[in-house]
Amino acid sequence: MQQHRTRVAIIGAGPAGLLLGALLADRGVPFAVVEHRSREHVLGRVRAGVLEQSSVEVLERLGLADGVHANGLVHGGVHLQHEGERFHIDFEELVGRTVTVYGQQRVQADLMAAHDALGSTVFYDAADVAPADEGGEAVVRFGLGGEPQELHADFVVGADGFHGVTRSLLAPTVAERGYDAAWLGILADVAPSTDELIYALHPDGFAMHSMRSPSVSRLYVQVAPDERIEEWSDDRIWDALDTRLGAPGWTLEHGAITEKSITQMRSSVVSSLGRGRAFLAGDAGHIVPPTGAKGLNSAIADVTLLGDALAAQAAGDEAPLRSYSDRALDRQWKVQQFSEYMTDLLHVPGPAVPADEREFRYRSRLGRLRYVSGSRPAQQSIAEQYTGLAIR
Amino acid sequence: MQQHRTRVAIIGAGPAGLLLGALLADRGVPFAVVEHRSREHVLGRVRAGVLEQSSVEVLERLGLADGVHANGLVHGGVHLQHEGERFHIDFEELVGRTVTVYGQQRVQADLMAAHDALGSTVFYDAADVAPADEGGEAVVRFGLGGEPQELHADFVVGADGFHGVTRSLLAPTVAERGYDAAWLGILADVAPSTDELIYALHPDGFAMHSMRSPSVSRLYVQVAPDERIEEWSDDRIWDALDTRLGAPGWTLEHGAITEKSITQMRSSVVSSLGRGRAFLAGDAGHIVPPTGAKGLNSAIADVTLLGDALAAQAAGDEAPLRSYSDRALDRQWKVQQFSEYMTDLLHVPGPAVPADEREFRYRSRLGRLRYVSGSRPAQQSIAEQYTGLAIR
Repeated sequence: MQQHRTRVAIIGAGPAGLLLGALLADRGVPFAVVEHRSREHVLGRVRAGVLEQSSVEVLERLGLADGVHANGLVHGGVHLQHEGERFHIDFEELVGRTVTVYGQQRVQADLMAAHDALGSTVFYDAADVAPADEGGEAVVRFGLGGEPQELHADFVVGADGFHGVTRSLLAPTVAERGYDAAWLGILADVAPSTDELIYALHPDGFAMHSMRSPSVSRLYVQVAPDERIEEWSDDRIWDALDTRLGAPGWTLEHGAITEKSITQMRSSVVSSLGRGRAFLAGDAGHIVPPTGAKGLNSAIADVTLLGDALAAQAAGDEAPLRSYSDRALDRQWKVQQFSEYMTDLLHVPGPAVPADEREFRYRSRLGRLRYVSGSRPAQQSIAEQYTGLAIR
Repeated sequence: MQQHRTRVAIIGAGPAGLLLGALLADRGVPFAVVEHRSREHVLGRVRAGVLEQSSVEVLERLGLADGVHANGLVHGGVHLQHEGERFHIDFEELVGRTVTVYGQQRVQADLMAAHDALGSTVFYDAADVAPADEGGEAVVRFGLGGEPQELHADFVVGADGFHGVTRSLLAPTVAERGYDAAWLGILADVAPSTDELIYALHPDGFAMHSMRSPSVSRLYVQVAPDERIEEWSDDRIWDALDTRLGAPGWTLEHGAITEKSITQMRSSVVSSLGRGRAFLAGDAGHIVPPTGAKGLNSAIADVTLLGDALAAQAAGDEAPLRSYSDRALDRQWKVQQFSEYMTDLLHVPGPAVPADEREFRYRSRLGRLRYVSGSRPAQQSIAEQYTGLAIR
């Protein structure tokens, strides 16, 4: 049995866990990270790709934004589209803010490099990770190469995702809803056919054109939740994208599809992000459907609040840590309603909606898009939410 | 058999039909109105009570706004509330516009007086009203005191409500949805306890404080769609209103309840408002849940477009009449999505929502209200829609 001692034990070495570590390092608060996957596995996950301006500002504050500035694509807006009519939501003009397209994998790589440079303690490949709040301290037990380990700390933070083990320490209730749609997403080796993201509502379903770099496109089409990926040949996918994203005088360039997967959609929020010595951040506490690009950004917001609160606690001020859960959840519910709004707005009603109501709901969504296309306040509201609410 | 001849036959002497008549009179286009109810019945219906600024402007244009200006209550905003936290949406400050609280019964009385003064032809108590588009003209057959009548016209307009007879001439498809909530509404002889309308979301359900005059309050509580009014004693109603509208330092004054009824909620839009010689306006073409106060205002918008189009046609320009349906439905779908947004925002999910999703949906609505309470663009968007989109 090997014993370790730190101030903050972080479970999960994804972007939430490593960013929290970077924040604590910056404030001189000792920490250690425990991750049950391998470093390579964590680095290899393809996830979100859009950073709010608020998120970029957090990375800048920590001196971790070199990669974002060198390789991120700054977008001044997005395109919304309904039945081939495309209009631009100009974030810069509307609210003076931008987003940055920069894959989560790159954020992950930047954070790993930063911790390598700091010489941080990160235990990868940890087996049977089990956190506890016992005997006046937080303890995380796990195995490393067959050897049992105990990490003792003042606090334990679960940044261990939607199926993480830390949540059980808080025993929260969970409020959630499903959607009767899923996203079939591809990565393709082809230059994006658009300068900025396109979100499209079409009678066949939602489609989206995003990107990872100047030479890699990321595209999605709405499919049924029980859709089998085998039913979708590359040709069928491009056909669907051509149809749903089609607009007069515009052509979608095709390329080799290098990755293909179906993602289910769910909204979920725990009743509390803090109890005793245990806290949750990011996906461990809440998930959103991907439509508003809020998953990674919410994790960054949580971790920013929690890192500052843990640093304040180390300096003798308990109040920010005690109010962390309320403050993070207040912001999170605003983000949840935006993600729900964008998802409902842009998807064709699926089988869960009574057949005789589908036409109404589709046309009402078209009506909303037409209203938004002509309303500056409605566009400003989308812009301020998409580029990121204040983190406080 | 008595024969009559006019240019525009209007079916329905509610606000839509009589306002269309007033518009046509103003433009010198002959018309006659056929109404199957008695004049007293039409005048006695208690309906909507809030006029958009756009609607008031239409009445002003026709010299029909004396009553509105003398007795209407100009409101510069509304109050929204969630779990006792009340905030003000200041229409005047946000978009420089207002609404006017003025009961539909008063609009009706003003229009009747105007037509009395004009000497308009209005057939009340018409039996078995049957419109037709045949032999190159519009014909409306009906009975009057046992005597068969035929009104021949160039066009027939159905302003005859949701269950009207004119709709069958157009054979439209209908897009609609229901809501798993209803409104129990009361009129009470007590001065309103608020300067402006209050819309409240509470865990027990929606509640609203409106008014008819400085001495008559109009109040509503959300109930189940299958609720029986016998279950709601006056005391139970006031208890529910006290609880749901309650806010620190504020008291709801009670008074004698003079009217009590339950209204179902439904959204419904026909696929076309015009075909051949037949047109629809107002409830005959679409209905909304009452939350956004859009029923009467949508009728006024339709009739404004249609009156102008019929006058243009009489002057030789067919184009506005041919585009009437598209223009009115484009506006109507924007109004529909607003009514749906306000209704979903302010009501507790009912039995149609799976039990395990109700908590999420309620909290997401709270999150939206909290977001709106702190966002100027979101408030401006509500203000511009509540005070009325442009009629064009």
